Amino acid sequence: MKINGEHYRTIWPRPDEAVEVIDQTRLPHRFETAVLRSPEDCADAIRRMVVRGAPLIGATAAYGVAFAMKHDPSSRGLIQALDLLGSTRPTAVNLKWALKRMHDALHNRGHIDRFQVAWSEAAAICDEDVEVCRRIGVNGLTVLRELAAGKTGRLEILTHCNAGWLATVDWGTALAPIYMAHDEGMPVHVWVDETRPRNQGASLTAYELGSHGVAHTIVADNAGGHLMQWGKVDLVIVGTDRVTRNGDVANKIGTYLKALAAKDNGVPFWVALPLSSLDMSLATGADIPIEERSPDELLRMTGRMPDGSLATVEVAAPGSPAANPAFDVTPARLVTGFITERGRCEASEAGLRSLLP
Amino acid sequence: MKINGEHYRTIWPRPDEAVEVIDQTRLPHRFETAVLRSPEDCADAIRRMVVRGAPLIGATAAYGVAFAMKHDPSSRGLIQALDLLGSTRPTAVNLKWALKRMHDALHNRGHIDRFQVAWSEAAAICDEDVEVCRRIGVNGLTVLRELAAGKTGRLEILTHCNAGWLATVDWGTALAPIYMAHDEGMPVHVWVDETRPRNQGASLTAYELGSHGVAHTIVADNAGGHLMQWGKVDLVIVGTDRVTRNGDVANKIGTYLKALAAKDNGVPFWVALPLSSLDMSLATGADIPIEERSPDELLRMTGRMPDGSLATVEVAAPGSPAANPAFDVTPARLVTGFITERGRCEASEAGLRSLLP
Repeated sequence: MKINGEHYRTIWPRPDEAVEVIDQTRLPHRFETAVLRSPEDCADAIRRMVVRGAPLIGATAAYGVAFAMKHDPSSRGLIQALDLLGSTRPTAVNLKWALKRMHDALHNRGHIDRFQVAWSEAAAICDEDVEVCRRIGVNGLTVLRELAAGKTGRLEILTHCNAGWLATVDWGTALAPIYMAHDEGMPVHVWVDETRPRNQGASLTAYELGSHGVAHTIVADNAGGHLMQWGKVDLVIVGTDRVTRNGDVANKIGTYLKALAAKDNGVPFWVALPLSSLDMSLATGADIPIEERSPDELLRMTGRMPDGSLATVEVAAPGSPAANPAFDVTPARLVTGFITERGRCEASEAGLRSLLP
Repeated sequence: MKINGEHYRTIWPRPDEAVEVIDQTRLPHRFETAVLRSPEDCADAIRRMVVRGAPLIGATAAYGVAFAMKHDPSSRGLIQALDLLGSTRPTAVNLKWALKRMHDALHNRGHIDRFQVAWSEAAAICDEDVEVCRRIGVNGLTVLRELAAGKTGRLEILTHCNAGWLATVDWGTALAPIYMAHDEGMPVHVWVDETRPRNQGASLTAYELGSHGVAHTIVADNAGGHLMQWGKVDLVIVGTDRVTRNGDVANKIGTYLKALAAKDNGVPFWVALPLSSLDMSLATGADIPIEERSPDELLRMTGRMPDGSLATVEVAAPGSPAANPAFDVTPARLVTGFITERGRCEASEAGLRSLLP
């Protein structure tokens, strides 16, 4: 995607064998990058959400393994790196997927080759992610075209959190079809859920859509049901951090509420699913570990002061505690279907298996 | 309710024929009061949400009429005041109810009596609101006792927005039973929805519950469905701005999403309803006007800086527009029942009529 006319990925290798990432904790207020040079840098960036989004977490972890192989290519070094990076965030399965892929590429290689193999494999994960997202865009575009064909005026899409190019290496998952629809001239408008407590919708999705010129409106997370009741949403499309064998969907906290409202109002609810986010080892969403993050994310808010400087304010009643579960599980029965790089399928084990080799 | 050991109502008459209110735009950061001396003061306080909550809006509007009668007790003066105050906020019906009551008390009185009659009637509306809320508390307490009897450990209650004493003259509607349960020693814990965009949950409900010593935890509006899926909510109880003849419920935006989640998880969903919020003239909730408020409420956030000063920061992507519908309608089919000052009833026309004289 382009920022001020320049093409960016969210993560890219540097000539000095470091990687550079867009610092997503500073958006939308500042466009800054951060340089990662060690497995510890990568683990910290994932934990603090300098990088976030299931596919981008996987890509960053892959480079973390590569950095480890530069300094200690022993099997102990490999295992330590996998453990460190694997413990950063529990819900998204891409992290495990990427680490397993790095392990499989490395464990039979001689120590002397391991850094180069790891570096190449991490780059391949990134390149493949771009292609996977592009295909999700193409496959999702047909969904949008079908719905647009049935109405006059612009297609009204609601999305939750950020499953755009900032959540991946490029293109995004849920937003990829929207960019392609916009680029081919389809009139679209996106209702952007604010996505408390970290505001990924208001800060990242709105930033992406605005940069690309896509019409959009930020709404409180509370508003989506009301919009659907009044016929103002033609479809919902979201990303996912993990889909289980039966088609249950872990995604950003609050996704389940939007899926309930979509069902209650007959609005299609699509999930953009790179198959690296599919976890066939788990029977249902009840088995997915749900990350509990710091209450500070809810109690404090960072923004721009009138003079352009950034400030963090405490917004809640002093002394009141908060809880901050970061994901919820939307049952397969509420999901219209999955849009994957291999095509669409229904949200069921049979549907998912129909797309697997 | 008590603030630092001193008993307060949210609105009270002063010896100088003004009224004083707690400035709810400053809570939870500052406890300040504002003095209202004219119908314009009252209209402005309602519009800016210095006072808010359906019952308190009605009480403030009643005093606004009294101030008008002091300066111009003519019938034109009366009509002008009713028009001014009636246009401040569209969704809560208590405003209309209180203004009609003032009109009925005044229109046949001689001009010379009108200020005193109006002043007394406004005071009566306030006193009656306290008694109505106390009775809602007593009637709701039986609901809490029944649910508490069926479980070990504390009773887990989720509420949305603020329907506490700050929304009324005293006691509150949805929170009144919780205060009474706490006071009689029942172990209760309240999940407090943040309630974006104005954060009435995190700022007002948390403040109230904390001041009274009731165990509570602030959560993002997005989290309620997840909590219910995991069995962490025994009941939901909310207030309302208007209930229509068929039992549909207008309340703070996002209420509908919680009602859907409650239904999906078999969690009782109760609505505390002072009968002044019942509008038998409307057939269904589709007829209720939904207030659209300023996008700034979503795009900016006020809070405490580390040095204790207050600051307002812009939190969203620069240039992105926002929409801010302030209420939604929960269909009667999702409501377990109403708790009113005259007892409980089911959410239907028959149920509501069973409580009317």
